[in-house]
Amino acid sequence: MNTGEIKKFSKLYERERKKIDVRLINSVKTRKPKSLYEPALYLVSSKGKRIRPLLVLLTTKAVGGKFKNSYNAAVAMELLHNFTLVHDDIMDNADKRRGRLTLHKKYDTNTAILVGDSLLSVAYEYILKDSNGNAKNIITSFTNGLVEVCEGQSLDTDFEKRYDVTIDEYLLMIKKKTASMIKICCEIGSTLGGGTKQEVKAITDYGLNLGIAFQIQDDLLDISAEESNLGKRIGGDLLEGKKTYLFIKALEKSTGEDRKSLQKVIINKGIRVNQINKFRKLYDELGVIEDAKTAINLYTGRALQSLYIIKKEEDRKILIWFADNLVKRKK
Amino acid sequence: MNTGEIKKFSKLYERERKKIDVRLINSVKTRKPKSLYEPALYLVSSKGKRIRPLLVLLTTKAVGGKFKNSYNAAVAMELLHNFTLVHDDIMDNADKRRGRLTLHKKYDTNTAILVGDSLLSVAYEYILKDSNGNAKNIITSFTNGLVEVCEGQSLDTDFEKRYDVTIDEYLLMIKKKTASMIKICCEIGSTLGGGTKQEVKAITDYGLNLGIAFQIQDDLLDISAEESNLGKRIGGDLLEGKKTYLFIKALEKSTGEDRKSLQKVIINKGIRVNQINKFRKLYDELGVIEDAKTAINLYTGRALQSLYIIKKEEDRKILIWFADNLVKRKK
Repeated sequence: MNTGEIKKFSKLYERERKKIDVRLINSVKTRKPKSLYEPALYLVSSKGKRIRPLLVLLTTKAVGGKFKNSYNAAVAMELLHNFTLVHDDIMDNADKRRGRLTLHKKYDTNTAILVGDSLLSVAYEYILKDSNGNAKNIITSFTNGLVEVCEGQSLDTDFEKRYDVTIDEYLLMIKKKTASMIKICCEIGSTLGGGTKQEVKAITDYGLNLGIAFQIQDDLLDISAEESNLGKRIGGDLLEGKKTYLFIKALEKSTGEDRKSLQKVIINKGIRVNQINKFRKLYDELGVIEDAKTAINLYTGRALQSLYIIKKEEDRKILIWFADNLVKRKK
Repeated sequence: MNTGEIKKFSKLYERERKKIDVRLINSVKTRKPKSLYEPALYLVSSKGKRIRPLLVLLTTKAVGGKFKNSYNAAVAMELLHNFTLVHDDIMDNADKRRGRLTLHKKYDTNTAILVGDSLLSVAYEYILKDSNGNAKNIITSFTNGLVEVCEGQSLDTDFEKRYDVTIDEYLLMIKKKTASMIKICCEIGSTLGGGTKQEVKAITDYGLNLGIAFQIQDDLLDISAEESNLGKRIGGDLLEGKKTYLFIKALEKSTGEDRKSLQKVIINKGIRVNQINKFRKLYDELGVIEDAKTAINLYTGRALQSLYIIKKEEDRKILIWFADNLVKRKK
């Protein structure tokens, strides 16, 4: 990819991201009651990467459709994503998100539960706007994504109490909790663009594998990013005792005292802030930072392989660029 | 309606209620992870009246369709209803529901939030099963119901802090929070039964008005039912300082000391258990128990007027019987 292309793709991304931001705000701004839609507006006004809506648009175009075929679906996917964030933040008792107070901290838990529900209802409203003859397929895909997200969140919670989570179980969990949503963005985008069965299948696979790579990258960033970039505390997953790709790999590979100290993280449901550097060093020694990078490359590679089906070179290249950017992101 | 007809309708209701119970249980029983679907099973196993699914079935038949056209939609409506119950119970911090511990008391709040979300996802899965050529219409109706339920819940919460809620505002709130769901049962049922535009409209109006009558009856039962019938404490709405039809009417009609004591309910966010009888007497003196009964009759009457459109006498009669039973219920 040459500099000119990269510049062009970045510009398109910025332009479309801004359009999505406006549409997101409009999706709740003028609705009543204010008690419901004002907190919703607070939420959707926060600056996100808008990865999911962009994927909807790009995959619509990849099969010969136009962006305008799927703007509402793109908004729907970001609303669905925001619904999961609000409820997850309550469950995790998180204080901050995207550098701002989480909704249940800014308002209260009851408001956050209801705003989450409401965002989901508006998400269905928006996905319906772009669905016509294909409504059953589109809504089925969207609903499957929702079912999986709930199941993934439940698996993730189950993992908290367990000492023997395997990488395969972890992969199943993130497929449901994270990758399913990236997947359905691609499935819905390519369906709305009028893709053939084969095209939709290949592009859906791109989404699934990209989603897996994305989550492992997320796990990696938690321990290796710069705090100023991340917008939240480094090592947050360790503080909470989360079963990340790195933690499970470390547990698998460690012996003796190292293993015991990792098991203690589970017993104590997390570590103290002053222990973060110790575990960062341990991760390094055990080579799990490298393992995570290898896994990210593996799944990104699989994702890119599916793009052979896209006819126009530029449409293919932008999805390669997009994947590349995602797995090289700093936050 | 003669005794033979009533017996026949009761029998049909019992038979279909049992079928719905089985289908509800099957909708979650064998799914994984257990951590998600076991609490969901606890919830759907509790004995409900299954008003919403029955309305779906009866309105499908009313326009010439068959029950089998809408069993999945019927299950979907009960799942949607259960989703609202779980989240509402968290928000109200309710201990009991249908004579059993509420989900967040039996498990915990995080589980209850997620199980609610998950029930909603399964509800969409089920409504999709019965939707084909009409998927867009059906899902739009279902989604509108969901949007309104969230808005209604938000309005209800707003009312808590206010001293000047009018009966009109109350009616808007219950239209959204309660009646919209009864309405869409009828809209979806009659659409799935293949009703004409006029038939669907009339039967939807039946649902809306019946839903309003149903909620006012609910308000009335809270203060006038027998505790052993109700399955929860009498006067619960007063204890929580809820703005019911009776409370708002009482505030409107009262003067002097009576008015002050009602305003104090708002200030104190409810009353003490030993004050329930005092307020029950006040309601009686102010005539708001009679007012509620009048309003119930008014909206039930409006509901029944819409049934003229149903061609077969028996199909019409069973919906009259159903409405009659609802507004004469003891719990």
